[in-house]
Amino acid sequence: MYTHQYLLDFTSSIFQKMGCIKEDADTTAKVFIAAELRGLPSHGMIRLKDYFELWKAQRINVKPQIKIIHETPSTAVVNADNAIGMIAASRSMEIAISKAKNIGTGWVSTCNSNHYGIAGYYAMMALEHDMIGICMTNANPLVAPTFSISRMLGTNPIAVAIPAGKQPPFIADFATTPIARGKLAVSEKKGEKVPLGYVQDKDGNQTDDPGILAKGGSMVTLGGDYEHGSHKGFCLASIVDIFSAVFSGANFGPFVPPSVAYLPVLDKKVGKGTGHFFGAMRIDAFQPADHFKAIMDEWIETFRNAKSAPGKPNVVIPGDPEREKEEYYKKNGITIIPTIAKDVKEIADYFGVEFLEL
Amino acid sequence: MYTHQYLLDFTSSIFQKMGCIKEDADTTAKVFIAAELRGLPSHGMIRLKDYFELWKAQRINVKPQIKIIHETPSTAVVNADNAIGMIAASRSMEIAISKAKNIGTGWVSTCNSNHYGIAGYYAMMALEHDMIGICMTNANPLVAPTFSISRMLGTNPIAVAIPAGKQPPFIADFATTPIARGKLAVSEKKGEKVPLGYVQDKDGNQTDDPGILAKGGSMVTLGGDYEHGSHKGFCLASIVDIFSAVFSGANFGPFVPPSVAYLPVLDKKVGKGTGHFFGAMRIDAFQPADHFKAIMDEWIETFRNAKSAPGKPNVVIPGDPEREKEEYYKKNGITIIPTIAKDVKEIADYFGVEFLEL
Repeated sequence: MYTHQYLLDFTSSIFQKMGCIKEDADTTAKVFIAAELRGLPSHGMIRLKDYFELWKAQRINVKPQIKIIHETPSTAVVNADNAIGMIAASRSMEIAISKAKNIGTGWVSTCNSNHYGIAGYYAMMALEHDMIGICMTNANPLVAPTFSISRMLGTNPIAVAIPAGKQPPFIADFATTPIARGKLAVSEKKGEKVPLGYVQDKDGNQTDDPGILAKGGSMVTLGGDYEHGSHKGFCLASIVDIFSAVFSGANFGPFVPPSVAYLPVLDKKVGKGTGHFFGAMRIDAFQPADHFKAIMDEWIETFRNAKSAPGKPNVVIPGDPEREKEEYYKKNGITIIPTIAKDVKEIADYFGVEFLEL
Repeated sequence: MYTHQYLLDFTSSIFQKMGCIKEDADTTAKVFIAAELRGLPSHGMIRLKDYFELWKAQRINVKPQIKIIHETPSTAVVNADNAIGMIAASRSMEIAISKAKNIGTGWVSTCNSNHYGIAGYYAMMALEHDMIGICMTNANPLVAPTFSISRMLGTNPIAVAIPAGKQPPFIADFATTPIARGKLAVSEKKGEKVPLGYVQDKDGNQTDDPGILAKGGSMVTLGGDYEHGSHKGFCLASIVDIFSAVFSGANFGPFVPPSVAYLPVLDKKVGKGTGHFFGAMRIDAFQPADHFKAIMDEWIETFRNAKSAPGKPNVVIPGDPEREKEEYYKKNGITIIPTIAKDVKEIADYFGVEFLEL
């Protein structure tokens, strides 16, 4: 078991060794460890190797000049100068929050960025300011629109964080596909099949093979098939793509660059890097903050008390499972599975940094 | 066949007879006929009877004083004074557009409103201003959260309209359930079963009975079941509910009032009427408008040209089917089925207005 503080300090030291200033390395480490704490290890330490390889291939910029290239009182477009996604996204969300402080809401679209970890992290940055936070990103294409077999979209997540009072905040953070991509990888490693309705083969037939992406297959959008509303999932993923990329001048849809160094840079570019979208809305731009929080408490309690179907668990308020995991892992420490720890140790050795293998 | 102009003039005259000023009656009629033209008759003339009965029961206010009760430069909360939803929503969206003109974006949450027809209508109001339009509403509870058998949410639609250049605009308008409620009614009238994954019985079992809502059943959220991401649909429907009602002071979730007079007013109120949420974002708050539109054209063409699965149609760009229907019905006229025409005629007779039965 590692304490989260140990992993934070270690991860920051690695990014400092890559050349990041301490503040940027700390920010990046916080997002990595937030993923581990919140029970989303697919976006945690396992990704350190991806960033390390991108850095070695000189495909990310550890000394970015992140700039606002266009703005209005309520909006900004940010060019992240090919920064590590966590740095680009934190800076962009701070801009959205700052605009919201001034005039009620702030909306930022960011180009020339990279994979940024968990979307929920940036949405949650708004909470301490008594704001609602919104965050979206496009991602490398794995998902086919309804009726299609072309990989045109990423799993394009949407995160929305809403403050409450006595109750913990409402925190939704979800891919616009039935499952996140990482769950396919886990099933594949375990040698398990997946339920029909997650992926399709190269001809568009449903399949239970979690390894189908390596065989020309694709993921499907939330809804699963046309009959069950996959065109609505396609709408959602498209909106995320347009807000993240067409607003900002990033690559859209099938042109989003890969987030790993073992995939080549795409020949065709239609913009700059990966795109994100951020929103911050002051709750007192709508209701007195205390009143809003009291009503949110009532909302959450009402839904928590909805009647469960026989044999089913209680209704889950978005954010509850991740918060419970965070409390557990903060207290009990974080396990890094041996294959990942081995990769991490190699990176540590490369930089001459100590990493305890437990 | 009726020309859409005939139905517009007729519908406006009915709302004028109810006591609306001409401008409000015209607005309401436009939304009714837009539903017919766009191939969504479940939100068209069939609903005239619902509004007529609400009016007779004195449950809607035809002379509303719609007021901004709180605002910042980028936000407003509107109290719609129990107006007909179409009037409340049009006025609210105008406020969002006006704020976007000033400072880039505008966001309005509206309470004390009623059923407003098709969400897409208000999102589309932004297009002529070179803005993206967003519109959501909560609705009377028919939908159970994942794991639950309680009807806690409406079909809570999301509409997003995005301008393009040579291409027609991208217009998404979808319920956060696998299907819209109206489709259940159509299947029930035809005596047909529905696919599993739309509705559940009172114990939470999947069923193919489209009439299950009258037997204690409920609709499920987009995703269908937990394994396929229905908790993500629950997140979406919840966000719509919170933005529409907690922001505005409307009734949330299970407390949203019924939109028909034959259902009684609920005993418990947690706010005022039905709630909506509106957004307008100037495209030139992010990119020069011509550039944005050119990139949207490229986006749309790229997705239109995605490869179809064998035997499947082409990828459908959101808004295409409705626009094609609108062109067809504008040219060829609108059919009103006899049972609906009979209801409409009775309303016309009540007010001494002529209605041609064809």
